[in-house]
Amino acid sequence: MKKLMNAVESILTESLDGFAAAHADIVTLGPEHKFIRRRVLQPGKVALISGGGTGHEPLHAGFVGLGMLDAACPGQVFTSPTPDQMLAAAEAVDTGAGVLYIVKNYEGDVMNFDMASEMAAGPVEKVLVNDDVAVEDSLYTTGRRGVAGTLVVEKIVGAAAEQGRDLAALKALGDRVNRATRSMGVALTSCTVPASGKPMFEIGADEMEFGVGIHGEPGRRRDRLKSADAIAEEMCAAIATDFDDISGKSALLFINGFGATPSMELYLMYNAARRMFETRGVKIARSLVGNYVTSLDMAGCSITLSLLDDEILPLWDAPVHTAGLRWGA
Amino acid sequence: MKKLMNAVESILTESLDGFAAAHADIVTLGPEHKFIRRRVLQPGKVALISGGGTGHEPLHAGFVGLGMLDAACPGQVFTSPTPDQMLAAAEAVDTGAGVLYIVKNYEGDVMNFDMASEMAAGPVEKVLVNDDVAVEDSLYTTGRRGVAGTLVVEKIVGAAAEQGRDLAALKALGDRVNRATRSMGVALTSCTVPASGKPMFEIGADEMEFGVGIHGEPGRRRDRLKSADAIAEEMCAAIATDFDDISGKSALLFINGFGATPSMELYLMYNAARRMFETRGVKIARSLVGNYVTSLDMAGCSITLSLLDDEILPLWDAPVHTAGLRWGA
Repeated sequence: MKKLMNAVESILTESLDGFAAAHADIVTLGPEHKFIRRRVLQPGKVALISGGGTGHEPLHAGFVGLGMLDAACPGQVFTSPTPDQMLAAAEAVDTGAGVLYIVKNYEGDVMNFDMASEMAAGPVEKVLVNDDVAVEDSLYTTGRRGVAGTLVVEKIVGAAAEQGRDLAALKALGDRVNRATRSMGVALTSCTVPASGKPMFEIGADEMEFGVGIHGEPGRRRDRLKSADAIAEEMCAAIATDFDDISGKSALLFINGFGATPSMELYLMYNAARRMFETRGVKIARSLVGNYVTSLDMAGCSITLSLLDDEILPLWDAPVHTAGLRWGA
Repeated sequence: MKKLMNAVESILTESLDGFAAAHADIVTLGPEHKFIRRRVLQPGKVALISGGGTGHEPLHAGFVGLGMLDAACPGQVFTSPTPDQMLAAAEAVDTGAGVLYIVKNYEGDVMNFDMASEMAAGPVEKVLVNDDVAVEDSLYTTGRRGVAGTLVVEKIVGAAAEQGRDLAALKALGDRVNRATRSMGVALTSCTVPASGKPMFEIGADEMEFGVGIHGEPGRRRDRLKSADAIAEEMCAAIATDFDDISGKSALLFINGFGATPSMELYLMYNAARRMFETRGVKIARSLVGNYVTSLDMAGCSITLSLLDDEILPLWDAPVHTAGLRWGA
C-alpha cells in the first residue's frame, strides 16, 4: 500500500483537520471529528445532513455549504458513521425547522440513520438514494445502491431548502429527484482501504468490473476491457431502459470519476455518453464531469442521467458554495 | 494499459470534443482541435494564451474563461503543441491589445512558443513559469521546470487582464508572480501515456520519486516511501529555503494532486504543510487543494507556496469562471 499518511489510525482525523483548515470560510469541524458543519447557519431553514463512510470525497463533507448540506458525518473509510455522530450533527445545525437526512442505500448507513432518527429530539425525515441500476441487491445492500446520484439529490434539495421549503416538501422533492436519477459504474482497477492495506478485489490486466459499486463491490459481471464506446453504450442502454421513456426529456448528464481516472478519459466518456443519450432523444441540458463520488484510488467512472423539469432545473442552477461544487456564489 | 478510450489516435480529439460540449457555456473549440478558446471575448483586453502537452488536465483548457485564459493550445499527451496552433489561437482571440503567452519552462514548449512569437502579426510577450525548486536542469529543461505554479500565474495575470492592464504591465506582473511562487513534487507511482502503453518509469512498491516533474521525469532522488509528515517537511524546507525569507509573509498554500491520489491524502498533506509553513512564520491566507496540474494517472502530489501581497491577493480573489476553477462568477 502506497499512501501519503502518517498512521492508519490518524489518516481520517488528520485529513479532516486539513479540510476544515483549508475551507474555514465555509465549514467548521464538530467535536471529536464527529461532523463537518456549515460555519453560518440560516435560522428557520430545514437542516440537511448526510454522511457515510469516507473514501468518496468530495462526497459528503465537500458538499457542506450554501445551497447544499448543513452537515456531513464522516465514518471511517467505507464504514458508516454512528448514530451518535448523526445526533450530534443534528443538534448542532437544527435551527428549529427539522432535519432531513440524505442517506445512500447501504445497510450500515440505513440502520444508523434510522437509529438516529428514532432518537431525535425534533422532527426528522429521510431521503434514501438508490440510483444504481447495476444490480437489485448487492453485497452491502437490500435493494439498489446509492451512488453518484446522491450529489444530484443533495444539490437540488439543498437549493430548495435555501428557499425556505418545509421538511415534508423537501422530503417529497428528494424522493422525486431520486426517482428521476439513474447511475451505472465500471471499474478498471481496485482500490485500497488504508486499514486493510490490500486491494478490495483482484482484477486482471485486461478486465473490467461492469456495474461496480462505489466500494469496489461486484456489479453485473467481470468482463474483458472493451472500447470506451462499447462500455458507454452498454451503460447508457442500462440507464435508458430503466426509465419508462426518456425520449424528448431534458436531463443532466454527469460523468463521475472514481478517483484515478484522468480527466481526459472522463471527457471522452462524456462525449460518448452524450451522443448515445441524444440518439435516444434526450436533450442534455446540463453537464457535470469530474471526480465527485469517488472510491479512493479506483480507476473507472460512472454515468448518471438525471431528468430535469421546470422545478428541478432552476434548483440545479441555483447558487452553491461548497468545497467540492461551486457556482453563482 | 487500461484506459477508457477507443483508439490511441483519437483519445485527445474525442476528449476535446467532450470538453467543449460539456462546457459550451464557457468555451468553443478551434478548427482541427488546434485550440480551446473563450466563447465570449472582451474587446480591448490583452489576450492570454497558454498551452502545452495534454495529460495535465484541467491545466490548460480547464482554465480558459472569465478571469483566466482566452485560449489554450493542447499538444498530444506530454508533447508541446505546434507554433501553428499558437498562431491560430492568437489570431482567434487577439482583439487588438496584444497577446501574452504563459509558458511552462520545458524545452519543446519554449521553442514552439518562441517560434510563434517571432511569426506573430501583432505585439506578443511571454511569461516563462519555472517554479519547481526540485532540480536546476532536468530531462526536458534548461533551468527549472514550470509546474503547478502555472495555475497561480494564469489566475493572477488573468484577473489583471480583466481590469484592462496593458501587455507590458501583465508581462511584468506574470514574471513577479512566478518569482513569488515555488513548488516541489513527489510521486508514488508512475503514469502511462496512451501512445506508449507502458509506465513512464519503474518504481518499487516501497519507493517514491522525490522532486518528480509533471511528466514523471526524475527529481532529486529515489527514496523509500516515508511518512506524510517527513515528506511534507522535506518539501516545505526545500521551498522555504529557496525563498530569501518568508517569515511574516502572507501566502497561498496549494496542494496539487497528480491525478490518482485520493482527496483524503491531499488534505492530510495540506494539514502537514500548513503546520510546517506556519512554524516558519508564514501566514496561510489562501488555500487550494485538489487535482489541478496532473500527470495522467500518477499518484503523488506537489506543494506550491505563492507569496501574496496587497496587489496579488485581490487578483487571486477576483471572479473566475472556468471549467476547472470557479468562484465569484
